[in-house]
Amino acid sequence: MEDSHTREPGESRLQEVIGRVAPLAQAAQIEARRRQDQLTKPPGSLGRLERLAIHLAGITGEARPHLEHKVVIVAAGDHGVTAEGVSAYPSEVTGQMVRNFASGGAAINVLARRAGARVVVVDVGVAEALPPELPIVHRKVAPGTANMALGPAMTHAQMLHTIAVGLDVVDAEFALGVDVICLGEMGIGNTTAASAIVASLTRSAVADVTGRGTGIDDAAWQHKVEIIEQALRVNRPDRRDALDVLAKVGGLEIAALVGVILGGAARRVPLIVDGFITTAAALVAVALCPAAQSYLIAAHRSVERGHAAALEHLELEPLLMLDMRLGEGTGAALALPIVDAALALLDEMATFEDAGISGATSPAVVADC
Amino acid sequence: MEDSHTREPGESRLQEVIGRVAPLAQAAQIEARRRQDQLTKPPGSLGRLERLAIHLAGITGEARPHLEHKVVIVAAGDHGVTAEGVSAYPSEVTGQMVRNFASGGAAINVLARRAGARVVVVDVGVAEALPPELPIVHRKVAPGTANMALGPAMTHAQMLHTIAVGLDVVDAEFALGVDVICLGEMGIGNTTAASAIVASLTRSAVADVTGRGTGIDDAAWQHKVEIIEQALRVNRPDRRDALDVLAKVGGLEIAALVGVILGGAARRVPLIVDGFITTAAALVAVALCPAAQSYLIAAHRSVERGHAAALEHLELEPLLMLDMRLGEGTGAALALPIVDAALALLDEMATFEDAGISGATSPAVVADC
Repeated sequence: MEDSHTREPGESRLQEVIGRVAPLAQAAQIEARRRQDQLTKPPGSLGRLERLAIHLAGITGEARPHLEHKVVIVAAGDHGVTAEGVSAYPSEVTGQMVRNFASGGAAINVLARRAGARVVVVDVGVAEALPPELPIVHRKVAPGTANMALGPAMTHAQMLHTIAVGLDVVDAEFALGVDVICLGEMGIGNTTAASAIVASLTRSAVADVTGRGTGIDDAAWQHKVEIIEQALRVNRPDRRDALDVLAKVGGLEIAALVGVILGGAARRVPLIVDGFITTAAALVAVALCPAAQSYLIAAHRSVERGHAAALEHLELEPLLMLDMRLGEGTGAALALPIVDAALALLDEMATFEDAGISGATSPAVVADC
Repeated sequence: MEDSHTREPGESRLQEVIGRVAPLAQAAQIEARRRQDQLTKPPGSLGRLERLAIHLAGITGEARPHLEHKVVIVAAGDHGVTAEGVSAYPSEVTGQMVRNFASGGAAINVLARRAGARVVVVDVGVAEALPPELPIVHRKVAPGTANMALGPAMTHAQMLHTIAVGLDVVDAEFALGVDVICLGEMGIGNTTAASAIVASLTRSAVADVTGRGTGIDDAAWQHKVEIIEQALRVNRPDRRDALDVLAKVGGLEIAALVGVILGGAARRVPLIVDGFITTAAALVAVALCPAAQSYLIAAHRSVERGHAAALEHLELEPLLMLDMRLGEGTGAALALPIVDAALALLDEMATFEDAGISGATSPAVVADC
């Protein structure tokens, strides 16, 4: 981090949180692994479910974790770069969808209900002035970012402030009780910001990590690539300084998610990463705090071009591949039953001894679990 | 089918059921597809979840289907071929695991509980004489198959009888109310039978469709391949006659599942295919009745070698790829929440009109949904 940043208010809180992110709990992992091998199944035969349960033991520090209180945090913000015509939908859809979240009609509401999760919507940057009675968290930092094709999306102070909002949201949820957080977002234009971040932090060509977002045609895609290239040329973000990248070509909702990730990791809460935008936030968070990587679980691989590369850069293997590209946290919420199932198996299955079942008679191949 | 078969008792019932398997309901599919495109999301952005919900509309004939009553049918049987040392576990584990299912301690019990499904265990061929008070369906046709390395696994009459048990089980469940059936199985040695069926019906080399089952080492795997090749040489099953293949190199639990699949398809019940063994049963069922294919949903791709080829032959795309290889119906039960989620999205999401949300401004790329 550059010296010029270290005196900013908010920066010291960020550093303090980063310092609290600890390695995974090895003892809990070892105990979970030992139990896996005693359960009534051939060793390793539950594949990734076994590894996932052991991973969650490491995150939570409990050998048989339960994720009772589930929350989907949906950060919302608008993007000045939509003025360049990078999205299939107009900016006002961000506010309209926030109202849809509040009234329970969006895809994320349906999936969260089924998974037993609460949806917490956080306005950090919606252009529309949303009515204060709307049941969301009202923490608007700005009515959208500035157009990154012409200059920085945010000031450094705005960016730090928005990360702090993410930390505040985690603190509030932690006070209420939270055992797992799904990362979600809403923001027309935010695949453009996410592509700029991913191109910058993974050192990829823009065209390789830019997709069709909500659904643009070939000509609009080409234009989107050029706008992102222009934004990177105009702003010259420092790739070694993830906060600089985030401020210059990021988004307010992405900054809030960086705070959610770091705050969640510091509190040993498993973080279920959704699609391309939340993965871009994870890239920033892990660049700032490599230890946070261990607290991430990749829910799915979306069809948005660049998601696979971003996940690979983070060394995350997605649980689901269902050709989704909606965002909102939908992939993360869809993965919750899989996560719950992995933990229920670890907790509830009988052991060979309990059930009086014979062991293997020939040398068994123990899977890479 | 050969003339010599057509006079068997049981064969006419089978032909009657096959005749009742109808094509998918197009009107329901069209209505479901129309609704998908009105929901508050970019068209196609829920990927396979959209296609899955439309598929289920076609299966059930309802434009907004609900799968309330869920059943996992676990057919169990032993295999004479275990005398050749093809499995890592001894035969007695089949009966021990059936007891484990009955007492709720197995992986399938845990996953079925979480998914709100009942587990119905059917003994069609367990070697052990299970106590009549055990809460399972007692329909043992034989105490295991004969050793297929030396001669036919079943007589033609046993095979038809066992398929009829599968039909009976579906009839009984239908009387109680069933909206979706997960296919499950238990039988030490049954990957050997499944590989023989898959090799025969997909015309693959045995080594290409033979895996490590519950976990055998390289030498044991080589031996297993040789035993399957021997069984095919000794029995010479007629590849154009799936019933002949099933009788000569199949298993009792696999025959029962063929009955479950055909009976379920005839009653328009969605059938969630699990791993390698249930897929082998599906290959037989679809060879007998190509229309049954449309009623199958592939839950997952297991790591058992040959499962991918068998799914491809059936033109089924698995929902999950989680390196599982347990069987019992675990992959199918794990996919139930995904199936439920797809239907809840179709049913519960707000439309653009309901929510007063703006449409796309630029020509949207409509996904291949």
